[in-house]
Amino acid sequence: MAVENKRCTQRRERLWAALNAMDERCDAMLVTSPHNVRYLTGFTGSNGLAVVTEEDTWFFTDPRYTFQAAREVTGRVKAVKGGLLEHAAAIVAKKKWRRLGIEQGQLTVERMETLRCNSSKRQEFVCRGGTIEMLRMTKSDEELGAIRQSVDTNSKALDAALRQFKPGVTEKELAAEIEYQMRKLGAEKPSFDSIVASGENSALPHARPSDQAIGKGTLLIDMGAFQNAYASDMTRTFFVGSADKHAKRIYAAVLEAQLAAIAAVRPGVAAGKIDQVARKVLKKHGLDKAFMHSTGHGLGLEIHEPPRLGKKDKTRLEIGMAITIEPGAYVENIGGVRIEDVVVVTPKGCEILTPTPKELRVL
Amino acid sequence: MAVENKRCTQRRERLWAALNAMDERCDAMLVTSPHNVRYLTGFTGSNGLAVVTEEDTWFFTDPRYTFQAAREVTGRVKAVKGGLLEHAAAIVAKKKWRRLGIEQGQLTVERMETLRCNSSKRQEFVCRGGTIEMLRMTKSDEELGAIRQSVDTNSKALDAALRQFKPGVTEKELAAEIEYQMRKLGAEKPSFDSIVASGENSALPHARPSDQAIGKGTLLIDMGAFQNAYASDMTRTFFVGSADKHAKRIYAAVLEAQLAAIAAVRPGVAAGKIDQVARKVLKKHGLDKAFMHSTGHGLGLEIHEPPRLGKKDKTRLEIGMAITIEPGAYVENIGGVRIEDVVVVTPKGCEILTPTPKELRVL
Repeated sequence: MAVENKRCTQRRERLWAALNAMDERCDAMLVTSPHNVRYLTGFTGSNGLAVVTEEDTWFFTDPRYTFQAAREVTGRVKAVKGGLLEHAAAIVAKKKWRRLGIEQGQLTVERMETLRCNSSKRQEFVCRGGTIEMLRMTKSDEELGAIRQSVDTNSKALDAALRQFKPGVTEKELAAEIEYQMRKLGAEKPSFDSIVASGENSALPHARPSDQAIGKGTLLIDMGAFQNAYASDMTRTFFVGSADKHAKRIYAAVLEAQLAAIAAVRPGVAAGKIDQVARKVLKKHGLDKAFMHSTGHGLGLEIHEPPRLGKKDKTRLEIGMAITIEPGAYVENIGGVRIEDVVVVTPKGCEILTPTPKELRVL
Repeated sequence: MAVENKRCTQRRERLWAALNAMDERCDAMLVTSPHNVRYLTGFTGSNGLAVVTEEDTWFFTDPRYTFQAAREVTGRVKAVKGGLLEHAAAIVAKKKWRRLGIEQGQLTVERMETLRCNSSKRQEFVCRGGTIEMLRMTKSDEELGAIRQSVDTNSKALDAALRQFKPGVTEKELAAEIEYQMRKLGAEKPSFDSIVASGENSALPHARPSDQAIGKGTLLIDMGAFQNAYASDMTRTFFVGSADKHAKRIYAAVLEAQLAAIAAVRPGVAAGKIDQVARKVLKKHGLDKAFMHSTGHGLGLEIHEPPRLGKKDKTRLEIGMAITIEPGAYVENIGGVRIEDVVVVTPKGCEILTPTPKELRVL
């Protein structure tokens, strides 16, 4: 509890340092994203919002969570009947916090209207969406411990599912087995809809598991878990029966790109630079046009968090960022290869958290 | 394909009949909710939006979905690079559709701002959120077929999981087993985080599966699947070892309330009335204060859809509505009972879709 208090207090202080560094001042910030609420208050329930000032946190939830909030939340807990937003607006009006930061990428037009209707005419709203997400990019040791455990569960789940794998099971069945193994290993749930794509389906980066039996050829598996609320994410591409020369060539190129991108990760490098490194390797192999997504993304309380390892992202990598490195190459009507690990930025480079081997494997 | 076309055309016509019946005219409606996009266009991918007029549908997606959209979508398909909203705004401006309906409960403040920035100064925006959800309340025979199959899978998954159940497994393990069975029976995924709550945990209507071993006493299971995109939802409460007098009394009261509520379902009755019927029975047994949520909700492409069977909902039930009936009673530090079925409103009453028995069962 004391630890929790200290952690949330530090996070509030970091938030205010970031807000105060901006051109326009805020008196308070309304936090509506459930992940940001959890990050700043410790609340793990489904219905809560927070008004955060430089000195304090007001937390609002409904009476179902009275006990839980009292136990979890750092700040002043208000378990209220009726709309939380109305109650939050009332505190803001009463305290005369004239300039209120809002999360414009999360708040709907409807909820914004509710907020306006319950505010004084002189209330000003300032867009501050993304500020807390920026803070969340660098993880504490405790958060990295949770990500490490989630990654570990994810790899063990793949191992367990593959031990039972036989050609002829459907993509959907293998996906079900993978998710079952995750759960048995302590995950709350998958961090996204698992991708199990065989043969030509693997050429679609966004494939969904189908009723197709997995036969000879490529088998691409992209999977992740949430464990203690933190996400993991991994892709491995296998070959059922055997890998032909063409498949081996693509696999080697993607693996080379992935290793080169990982080798480029270190504090101070722009996220977009890592993407360029991967893309350059694939270009060398004539596969740059077969790689049509970005090289990776941050992960934590959400499966996709900033930074985005895409061409244009100028975010400088920092110690403690947890990111995926996942180049791929997709050839229509043939198949695709993607290889993805989670890595953490360290003082001199990065540590690969994902323990699953990456050598070409024939099942 | 012809069937799909006809269905989507009919839905567009129903939407426009509803929009035209409102006081203020719309020239076009921007549909951004993924469920509503799917309902109106047939698109099953993850990134799409639609601009719908009385005569036509413009559908926007990114190039990843070019082929899929061409195959699935009824309307003019535009697979575009860059922001979909910007492209949609450009069509609206070009066609001079002055008054544009928006889904204010779905569009974020940020996206609304993007829309405004890409619109002419004379563009007007009209709040039409909820209109499509109202149409979605009454299901077609085809939709009811999908819900029926999802409900059936859900019940079979419970049976299969219980066949393997032994006291001593944890709540999380049983939840994992339930979800695995769903998947093996053809579901895409759970329609919500399964609730497996034993002993005192069952007194929390929003309990999450814990690492607690399931011992003697109450075992409440609330579970649902998505199959072919349609949701199911069911709660059953069992007793491990034996049910004491107190548990039997609560169970009988909740079952009586559930049966009374089901008996009250018929076309023309207000949704709120069904809630009152359930509440009245529980009051007779001194349990009205132990029932702190509403009696049910619609379900379909989403797990929670209108109507809400709560005190204040005046929606009149109509033939073809698929709703849950799920009264409960929760006694702190002891346990809770909830019994939930999916029913469909029929000309003279309703049909219970859920096949799982409701007699008190000791495991």
